[in-house]
Amino acid sequence: MAPGPTRIGLAGLAVMGQNLALNIAEKGFPISVYNRTTSKVDETVERAKAEGNLPVYGFHDPKSFINSIQKPRVVIMLVKAGAPVDQTINTLSAYMEKGDCIIDGGNEWYENTERREKEMTELSLLYLGMGVSGGEEGARNGPSLMPGGSFDAYKHIEDILLKVAAQVPDSGPCVTYIGKGGSGNFVKMVHNGIEYGDMQLISEAYDVLKSAGKLSNDELRAVFSEWNKGELQSFLIEITADIFGIKDDKREGHLVDKVLDKTGMKGTGKWTVQQAAELSVAAPTIASSLDARFLSGLKEERVEASRIFRSSKFDDNLTEHKVNKEKLINDVRQALFASKICSYAQGMNLIRAKSIEKGWGLKLGELARIWKGGCIIRAIFLDRIKKAYDRNPDLANLLVDPEFAKEIIERQSAWRRVVSLAINSGISTPGMSSSLAYFDTYRRERLPANLVQAQRDYFGAHTYERIDVEGSFHTEWFKIAKQSKI
Amino acid sequence: MAPGPTRIGLAGLAVMGQNLALNIAEKGFPISVYNRTTSKVDETVERAKAEGNLPVYGFHDPKSFINSIQKPRVVIMLVKAGAPVDQTINTLSAYMEKGDCIIDGGNEWYENTERREKEMTELSLLYLGMGVSGGEEGARNGPSLMPGGSFDAYKHIEDILLKVAAQVPDSGPCVTYIGKGGSGNFVKMVHNGIEYGDMQLISEAYDVLKSAGKLSNDELRAVFSEWNKGELQSFLIEITADIFGIKDDKREGHLVDKVLDKTGMKGTGKWTVQQAAELSVAAPTIASSLDARFLSGLKEERVEASRIFRSSKFDDNLTEHKVNKEKLINDVRQALFASKICSYAQGMNLIRAKSIEKGWGLKLGELARIWKGGCIIRAIFLDRIKKAYDRNPDLANLLVDPEFAKEIIERQSAWRRVVSLAINSGISTPGMSSSLAYFDTYRRERLPANLVQAQRDYFGAHTYERIDVEGSFHTEWFKIAKQSKI
Repeated sequence: MAPGPTRIGLAGLAVMGQNLALNIAEKGFPISVYNRTTSKVDETVERAKAEGNLPVYGFHDPKSFINSIQKPRVVIMLVKAGAPVDQTINTLSAYMEKGDCIIDGGNEWYENTERREKEMTELSLLYLGMGVSGGEEGARNGPSLMPGGSFDAYKHIEDILLKVAAQVPDSGPCVTYIGKGGSGNFVKMVHNGIEYGDMQLISEAYDVLKSAGKLSNDELRAVFSEWNKGELQSFLIEITADIFGIKDDKREGHLVDKVLDKTGMKGTGKWTVQQAAELSVAAPTIASSLDARFLSGLKEERVEASRIFRSSKFDDNLTEHKVNKEKLINDVRQALFASKICSYAQGMNLIRAKSIEKGWGLKLGELARIWKGGCIIRAIFLDRIKKAYDRNPDLANLLVDPEFAKEIIERQSAWRRVVSLAINSGISTPGMSSSLAYFDTYRRERLPANLVQAQRDYFGAHTYERIDVEGSFHTEWFKIAKQSKI
Repeated sequence: MAPGPTRIGLAGLAVMGQNLALNIAEKGFPISVYNRTTSKVDETVERAKAEGNLPVYGFHDPKSFINSIQKPRVVIMLVKAGAPVDQTINTLSAYMEKGDCIIDGGNEWYENTERREKEMTELSLLYLGMGVSGGEEGARNGPSLMPGGSFDAYKHIEDILLKVAAQVPDSGPCVTYIGKGGSGNFVKMVHNGIEYGDMQLISEAYDVLKSAGKLSNDELRAVFSEWNKGELQSFLIEITADIFGIKDDKREGHLVDKVLDKTGMKGTGKWTVQQAAELSVAAPTIASSLDARFLSGLKEERVEASRIFRSSKFDDNLTEHKVNKEKLINDVRQALFASKICSYAQGMNLIRAKSIEKGWGLKLGELARIWKGGCIIRAIFLDRIKKAYDRNPDLANLLVDPEFAKEIIERQSAWRRVVSLAINSGISTPGMSSSLAYFDTYRRERLPANLVQAQRDYFGAHTYERIDVEGSFHTEWFKIAKQSKI
């Protein structure tokens, strides 16, 4: 039993929930915990004891759980997105009072948060949808937190969040009040979309180095370790280096070679791609990472297709190709960096488009700041993005920030070499090549879209604009063409 | 006034509606027409007179319009998708009786059709959502029709649709009962997505030939005319040839060069991309065409970006590059054809995925057949697709049909040359390169998805499968890596 009211409650004690509860307790905030399956409650309390007698207090029923928390009560939920969140809200809110506050820490669809915030307002309760990134380890030792919704609710727990979040030297805790409504969930969703893109780009770098460069796992480990000391320094590059170093505990060889090439996914990558289409924002790098996951799932079809296309000519190129390893490693590093800029440009512009649509007033530089630590995409690179938006908050696209533009110009020859090599070796690099296509489309004064628009006017009378005269025009293309044929 | 009850009614007399009404009348079916703005009614009747005293009868109020039609009454609506359709249904259904039938001929979101079909069932009315493709010209002279919903309703007007639709020798009228619910709208949506892809791929062929090959408009016209005699023969290639032949009527030069490179769009391309993500179907060619439209709209940003990146080194390649025109034309033709196969493979697999989800039982070969004439994507190529599904209705992907596989193998060197040339010339070919990446991903037995899955297990404990042992595995990657570092 707690000696007095606890400071906060947490419901939903899977690993993420347990770890976040322990993190909060460790920062000096006594916490009540509850889970429908009560064995998880006892497990959490046991862990709290074992990990240093942390002030975690377990409850087996929702009423005593809620009553144990000091008023105004704040409860964080970490349960599966969707219906389980609604059920948990129903259970908990029955015992809550005016001014109490519920926080959803899951990967929830932002519109669900907006609906629930309204429903809670009718009960005089406050509501936050808070993205939490960092996986199990981040939850325990310092995640990146993206709370959006009621500002009053945020203020109730700001002191806790500032201590619980990852701390980045010279940059502060990885948390900020994101904005109103579902903005916290939306920003977390795009964070995950960017994460998909990063992982895809890294896997392509691995593929090119392995398949075209014939690097061994030990060499790959050394390359990624080296990369993690420079501009690519990031959590994902670091764990990639780790992965190449791990031996199979069952058989001979490295574990990574035994992992089946089928990638799972949850909803956030899909939502990001759908929202990009909805908001007319091109996000091809992120979309290509989603497609790559879809295609990875068709393992049996791929095996069959590889048999059909095995005999084809270019496969010889793949084996015959002579590459200079050092030069290739250097090129791939640059291709990865340049592609990454494109991917983040897409994600940031998606967030801005939504912010404008919803009137959220999101600050892109501040989002880059809170992603510098704790979360899966944490990287030295994010400091660069923050500075780009500090220089110009209205920056149309990261690509045209003077610093990034300079770096892309320096890297574009290498980038083009890598994508060309992949194409001519039959290695697919959908992320790198769609990033390059994005760059080459964006930096093109004159696109062949004039032809598409002429076609649309030809068959659908959709009209077109001209380069030299203001206005909207329609031409009877068919009639004129017919006449000229006679 | 009509001499007796008419066979059918049509409401919504913008150009598409007028043309479809005249088409129906011309095929010998007396038709009643109605429009809220009554001047359109008179205009249609005038046109019917002028175009050969066609049996078109105009009505200025909905009641007399409905009463003029023989029972069971059938009314086709051609109004803007969304709320206007609901309003028109309300207006018309007020005067309709049990067993009467409403058909929506617009580009409607399929779920709206399913909602309305249910609502109509409560009124004992029948409902169809019918995709109509072919633009204004197709509506007048023979469109491709994709009716889905009530089979009884379809049977009421099958005789009309069979005559009104485009007629393809040896292949019959371009109409079939698609399936239940919103299947007609869904199939039309994917048709439009494929149309986006075709237009994008053609514009990229144009761009490569113009920018890298330095072809003049006259040369482009000749190339596309020539292509229209072979495997690429299609409406879109034909009109592209036409477009390059048309002179500006205001100033010197060709009109296509004066058209602003900003492409408009309506909802169907966006929906196609969103549905692909929803159904876990990779559709990168179609997605890249949507992205290209988005980026085309950012004209001012592109002008600015082109200024920033103008001085960069590779631009010299573009101007210095020496190309053999004949060889380039031949390569681009093959790249276009191979990319097109990928795009159609994506669209067809999207339709199949939805058909399975909804239990629609759609027949892909039959869809290819009704697209052979009338619609915007009509092409000799569709006969090939039909035959592929005739050979094997369960074909996993068009790419592995023996005929298409053979053609891709023959064309892949040219395809890779074109995409490489574009990449090294700084010309973006997002459609062709994403198609190639799709092919190279699909035909790959072993993808680097093993790394992505290892990463997911590292930071999120998402587990992985192995290539050699059944089951689901989790490794404490972090702990092992940490130990090995000590």
